[in-house]
Amino acid sequence: MQQKQISAAVIKRLPRYYRYLSELQEENVERISSDELSKRMGVTASQIRQDLNNFGGFGQQGYGYNVEYLKNEIGKILGLDKIHNMIIIGGGNLGKALAGYANFENQGFVIKGIFDCNPELVGRKVRDIKIMSMGVLENFLKENQIAIVVLTIPKDQAVQVAQELYGYGVRAIWNFAHVDLNLPEDAFVENVHLSESLMQLSYRLNSRQ
Amino acid sequence: MQQKQISAAVIKRLPRYYRYLSELQEENVERISSDELSKRMGVTASQIRQDLNNFGGFGQQGYGYNVEYLKNEIGKILGLDKIHNMIIIGGGNLGKALAGYANFENQGFVIKGIFDCNPELVGRKVRDIKIMSMGVLENFLKENQIAIVVLTIPKDQAVQVAQELYGYGVRAIWNFAHVDLNLPEDAFVENVHLSESLMQLSYRLNSRQ
Repeated sequence: MQQKQISAAVIKRLPRYYRYLSELQEENVERISSDELSKRMGVTASQIRQDLNNFGGFGQQGYGYNVEYLKNEIGKILGLDKIHNMIIIGGGNLGKALAGYANFENQGFVIKGIFDCNPELVGRKVRDIKIMSMGVLENFLKENQIAIVVLTIPKDQAVQVAQELYGYGVRAIWNFAHVDLNLPEDAFVENVHLSESLMQLSYRLNSRQ
Repeated sequence: MQQKQISAAVIKRLPRYYRYLSELQEENVERISSDELSKRMGVTASQIRQDLNNFGGFGQQGYGYNVEYLKNEIGKILGLDKIHNMIIIGGGNLGKALAGYANFENQGFVIKGIFDCNPELVGRKVRDIKIMSMGVLENFLKENQIAIVVLTIPKDQAVQVAQELYGYGVRAIWNFAHVDLNLPEDAFVENVHLSESLMQLSYRLNSRQ
């Protein structure tokens, strides 16, 4: 399949299509029209058609979408047909919570290790994932194919650690530290700034009054 | 201060201004020009001026912004000058991780309780926050002013629990369940779909190859 340049907004919507199609598949729905899908997802049918046309369409006029096929194709576009090995840097509450969430593995995101500078944590395990010392990080990255690094460390350490990771060849970071990492352009950083998400709620509560 | 209708995109950017201004304040910077702020934040100075003009400006031509004043004003717009009581529904790994994160409290988001249907968890504590049974939730909501409910339960329970919460008068939900809640329009739902965030990274890794 040929891919033209896809806008970030479309990419952001793809996982939601994938989620709805997965649910439809669980309900044994084999085929769905863009109208039905649009009602279910609360978006317009024309939005769905436009989004999917970016990747060549997938539907036949008047015949609807084949749920399993469309789900699998969107999965391939999102890279979900591949295994992505990850490590977590930061074995605190959030790092452990993410490591404990086995669902990521069902989608091909496999956590290979947790790293922390606190010697009291080193040697412990979350599920069967070992917490290791930061001293062995560089070697671990050399010896294992790690696609994504999850950063769950405080913001005052995150920028420096991210630069070290870039130096070790890491090009994709899932960043939970409340700071911008400012890495070179060939690195992909996806930020999850939890406080900023919460502030959207307090803004809306506040502006309502 | 009068507020006109502000676009969602501007609101999404406000917490980032707040974060940068907080950092400047920690560095004892008293005044900053929109040019300097723009370099630091990696956005254009005209974007900054446009965004802040939505709220009346805050700057004097050629004189720059007063860091503390601007931070406080943005904080007020975001509702950070108020206390927002929260509860967490779902005492699993993620719920406990969020409860353990004391930084929310520094921003006025105070976690008053955790609720779970698992009797083995009920009675335990995270920091000094009690895990309570779902059976006492309705009463707890009646007796405490809870502004925001955090949902960290599996997706197959989240929709029903959200509807119950709406029935109890809850109007702001921070939703970590991997499902759309479809509440009436006067409810504010802020979704944190972690898997979908991760898929943005795998898309970018995948489309690079």
